[in-house]
Amino acid sequence: MRVVKGHGTENDFVLLPDLDGAIGLTAELTRRLCDRHAGIGADGVLRVVRSENDDAARPMAHEAPYFMDYRNADGSIASMCGNGVRVFARYLQRERLIGSEAVVGTRGGPRRVWLDGSRDITVDMGEPTFPDLQQRVTSAPLPSVRGTAVEIPNPHVVVPVSTVAQLRALDLSRAPVVDPPRPDGQNVEFVVRRGERHLSMRVYERGVGETRSCGTGICAAVVGVALTDGMPLRDGSTWRVDVPGGRCSVSWPASGTVLLRGPAVIVGDIELDDGWLSSVNEASDRTR
Amino acid sequence: MRVVKGHGTENDFVLLPDLDGAIGLTAELTRRLCDRHAGIGADGVLRVVRSENDDAARPMAHEAPYFMDYRNADGSIASMCGNGVRVFARYLQRERLIGSEAVVGTRGGPRRVWLDGSRDITVDMGEPTFPDLQQRVTSAPLPSVRGTAVEIPNPHVVVPVSTVAQLRALDLSRAPVVDPPRPDGQNVEFVVRRGERHLSMRVYERGVGETRSCGTGICAAVVGVALTDGMPLRDGSTWRVDVPGGRCSVSWPASGTVLLRGPAVIVGDIELDDGWLSSVNEASDRTR
Repeated sequence: MRVVKGHGTENDFVLLPDLDGAIGLTAELTRRLCDRHAGIGADGVLRVVRSENDDAARPMAHEAPYFMDYRNADGSIASMCGNGVRVFARYLQRERLIGSEAVVGTRGGPRRVWLDGSRDITVDMGEPTFPDLQQRVTSAPLPSVRGTAVEIPNPHVVVPVSTVAQLRALDLSRAPVVDPPRPDGQNVEFVVRRGERHLSMRVYERGVGETRSCGTGICAAVVGVALTDGMPLRDGSTWRVDVPGGRCSVSWPASGTVLLRGPAVIVGDIELDDGWLSSVNEASDRTR
Repeated sequence: MRVVKGHGTENDFVLLPDLDGAIGLTAELTRRLCDRHAGIGADGVLRVVRSENDDAARPMAHEAPYFMDYRNADGSIASMCGNGVRVFARYLQRERLIGSEAVVGTRGGPRRVWLDGSRDITVDMGEPTFPDLQQRVTSAPLPSVRGTAVEIPNPHVVVPVSTVAQLRALDLSRAPVVDPPRPDGQNVEFVVRRGERHLSMRVYERGVGETRSCGTGICAAVVGVALTDGMPLRDGSTWRVDVPGGRCSVSWPASGTVLLRGPAVIVGDIELDDGWLSSVNEASDRTR
């Protein structure tokens, strides 16, 4: 079995090419592939399948010929990931399966991507909404701060921090306390204004902990700060956002949806060892 | 460039086959290969070179035909690793470069290995010594405890813990306080006696933090507990040691040195992407 390792701003993935939909991707195989010591190591698995060969994706096959079957590292099913879809598109481009523009099928719906031949790829992230919520966030050593609630479509709260030193000093080894929390939790983005349309950010993802980057979180940070600061939201100007894993940019044209642009890197192609795979299959059988 | 990922009790390595000694393994390449998000991810790199083709290994080439050029994840040079040498031997076996017994060259000297065709490999770990030191170790939430100092040949302190629940509850997210510390620090092994010659252990490695396993630490734990309990040290009987990453066994025959036995797994073969490698080489050039 061959897989591919890649990352977008250090949010990393194992891609499993399965164009014909013939490989049964079990939760056990997902967990083992993502295991950072006993496997390859990744934040998630992106199975690459022709939409016509997957029951969930067949309805969008006319529009999105390839489906990103995204699984979290714990084996659970996930819908969309702004960093993952760029890495997915980079792989399709390398395999000459798409050109400079394509639509990728995801459980969050079809997503348009643009590849101009540079290291960066642009992804349509949809429309954010701003729920009318008063949330306060506390994360040591900072005092409680009021955040801005954003959904895109997963729930975020964007929290302003005054200085880069304060951002660095945050202890995100434990979850920030959000009061009141959303029913299913939320990601928390701590942001510092660095200059004109330039932010630095750290993110705590629900159920995961601090990560090197979060695609929807980067978009939420930009629209959250623009809203708070009374800046035009949909004027199409470009915002830069620095995260621990690199840099992305965000824009929201008046005529369209939010666009996330950032790097997508293929690290290498991996031929899994037969003995290693057998041990995974044995474990999968035991848990059935 | 092709590399191989493997692990021994979840102490994981990227092997870089370089039999002719033609590849310049820079500190930058080591760090990038070991990067768990932007690279492959590992605790260290094991370059596989014929001893006759490496200046450091040539003097032992008559005895040890292959040299394990071991680098830590930060790019620094390391001498020996009980888990790494098993994975190294497993690779040589798979490539049909050695038979069921061989001597591997390491910076800590030649090390004999035995491969009987099972999942486990046995490694000669040398002779431990017991420095005459009174060290006390404090790690929350436990009170200060007296430890047993062992060198094999790197420095360890073995700390008894009463119950498995106490072992699990230890907060090893920060370094245990050792009083007085050794001049260059030491690894700390917390051990619970589980039964006749059966231990459970967690380890905090100097300069790294808690790890899933430590080969010399497992040996140190066995001889440290045997010494403390007044049990025969060199009677050749087998001790089992459970670590978070799996299980090893240790014995010390009267006529020989300490033997560590445990699993060694190849996960897969990796063809690194040309673009990824170019970016590493550019960074290496900049730091020269």
